[in-house]
Amino acid sequence: MIDPDLEAPYLLFLGDAARAQDAGTAAALARWRPEECVGQLRYANARVDCGLPDMDIGQARRAGARSLVIGVTTPDGTLKTDWESTLVDALAAGLDVVGGPHTPLESIPRLANAAYRSGSRLVDLRRLPEELAVADGRPRSGRRLLTVGTQRDAGPLDTALALHQALRQGGVDARFRASSPTGMLIAGRGVALDSVPAEYLAGVAEQLCPANDPDHWDIVEGQGSLLHPASAAITLGLMHGVRPDALVLCHQAGRTRLDGWPGGAIPPLNECIERHLQAAKPSSPAAHFIGIALDTTGLAGDARRTALAAVENETNLPCADPLADGAEALLAWLPATTA
Amino acid sequence: MIDPDLEAPYLLFLGDAARAQDAGTAAALARWRPEECVGQLRYANARVDCGLPDMDIGQARRAGARSLVIGVTTPDGTLKTDWESTLVDALAAGLDVVGGPHTPLESIPRLANAAYRSGSRLVDLRRLPEELAVADGRPRSGRRLLTVGTQRDAGPLDTALALHQALRQGGVDARFRASSPTGMLIAGRGVALDSVPAEYLAGVAEQLCPANDPDHWDIVEGQGSLLHPASAAITLGLMHGVRPDALVLCHQAGRTRLDGWPGGAIPPLNECIERHLQAAKPSSPAAHFIGIALDTTGLAGDARRTALAAVENETNLPCADPLADGAEALLAWLPATTA
Repeated sequence: MIDPDLEAPYLLFLGDAARAQDAGTAAALARWRPEECVGQLRYANARVDCGLPDMDIGQARRAGARSLVIGVTTPDGTLKTDWESTLVDALAAGLDVVGGPHTPLESIPRLANAAYRSGSRLVDLRRLPEELAVADGRPRSGRRLLTVGTQRDAGPLDTALALHQALRQGGVDARFRASSPTGMLIAGRGVALDSVPAEYLAGVAEQLCPANDPDHWDIVEGQGSLLHPASAAITLGLMHGVRPDALVLCHQAGRTRLDGWPGGAIPPLNECIERHLQAAKPSSPAAHFIGIALDTTGLAGDARRTALAAVENETNLPCADPLADGAEALLAWLPATTA
Repeated sequence: MIDPDLEAPYLLFLGDAARAQDAGTAAALARWRPEECVGQLRYANARVDCGLPDMDIGQARRAGARSLVIGVTTPDGTLKTDWESTLVDALAAGLDVVGGPHTPLESIPRLANAAYRSGSRLVDLRRLPEELAVADGRPRSGRRLLTVGTQRDAGPLDTALALHQALRQGGVDARFRASSPTGMLIAGRGVALDSVPAEYLAGVAEQLCPANDPDHWDIVEGQGSLLHPASAAITLGLMHGVRPDALVLCHQAGRTRLDGWPGGAIPPLNECIERHLQAAKPSSPAAHFIGIALDTTGLAGDARRTALAAVENETNLPCADPLADGAEALLAWLPATTA
């Protein structure tokens, strides 16, 4: 696991983000760590708003910001050259620049030079653990819950965080375990699982949630989708390394097609559930689903209630929208702790 | 896909290899490319023999060798410091040094210096393709066969090579596609799939066997085992990227336990088959098994025939030991080409 030693509070860099999905990192950080976000920096042509005060680097510095977080991504995960001037200015002003782009920050000469001159840090959230090992399957004490999705980006991060929050509010000893750069910004540590060499995927997932007290719950952020061929391997390696006791399936209400895979369909939810249990079987024969996290964005009133009830009825599992309703309802079937 | 521009013929370096499995790379190269192997270099305490003339670097040079191939591995895949002197001598003598250790060859200062001074090359078979992309699932013409195993190292390389050989002998347009450093030494190109970042695993597998003539067969070397939690993700990503028409299951006769996973058992063969078909379904709904490659090492005469017949009977699929019998028998159920 990586501890990038993040320096809060943050200025969220949104650049010229046009669509909400381009600024998912900033939105998640603003949602889950509002107290650590002093403001947002947007270019004039940006069309995304995280609801934070707009400010430039000087204003952010005066407001106490210690890091600029790259909260925006491009479709291929690289940095836009247009953004570099702002990042250079942030470094020169004494802010760390933090991000998880697919191009390592240190490999961009302008940024590396600016960091060297200013003494500010480039914090790369995709750095890999120094000790990589193949999974060994040794028994580990402690309880583990993993969120999984019917497609990529079905909400495993928000669901894990909402579950973690509900558990902590209920007095349960629990910890959120981040498997993405965005999750790491919220947790302060974790690992960018999709950057791990395939051979070590399950091994790094083991490291992410090590042995713990028997009643401790690790709530692990899911990645990819077992049902999506482009990312199923990530989900499978994560499952085999985490060896979850409990699973929560994340689904977007009404969604039937996979994004980015020609002809790809999301199977009926009960088939989704069955496939996950089959895949988990070699490492976690007792794993089971405790609920469905349904993203009901865009539905209101009766339509929303109907969607939730329909999924409960279809799967015979508790169903809730974690962002709209919280995740308490999903904990009803959590295996009782041994206390 | 990586073309490391290998310079044959080879001197196979076995070092102090004590067990046959430590020298699997050398053994495979000696078996499948004997005409490219001038000899083997072993230390006095080695206990492995690939059946090639023993020689030192000077003798190998005079015999025409142009590269030393690191044919031996350690359990964690790194290079032994004890071996470095020999590799330095090889570079100084004008041989390229070729290998796929988990420590990049260039990162070892003695080797990097020796290569710089001599002009010889360090050829790292774990180098990644420069263009990494997430799998896109676009239809590709051509036929593809993938070998898969009931455990790690169940023989996917030898099986793929034997199938390729049998197809070529039968006049079929076919190509072997290597997914490991050892496979790359035999094919001359390919990719070390287990070193690929998880996000790009299926995408690199797509690149490995690109669109081809409708009747062309790519015979793809399998990796890991879908039934082994430590490596199942690799197999799944490979399957989703390759999108095979045909599968061959590799199994070691009599083997019931997984190596390196406490309590891990190999399910009955028909369950192994079913799990692979389920996993392939999202990307290759028509994929099917055409046969079982049974490693009958250690069995002879009646016991061997009984083992083969029992597996045929159990699975209702053709069964053969590709190294002992060749792979012709496994091709009977290959989907007919459209010619």
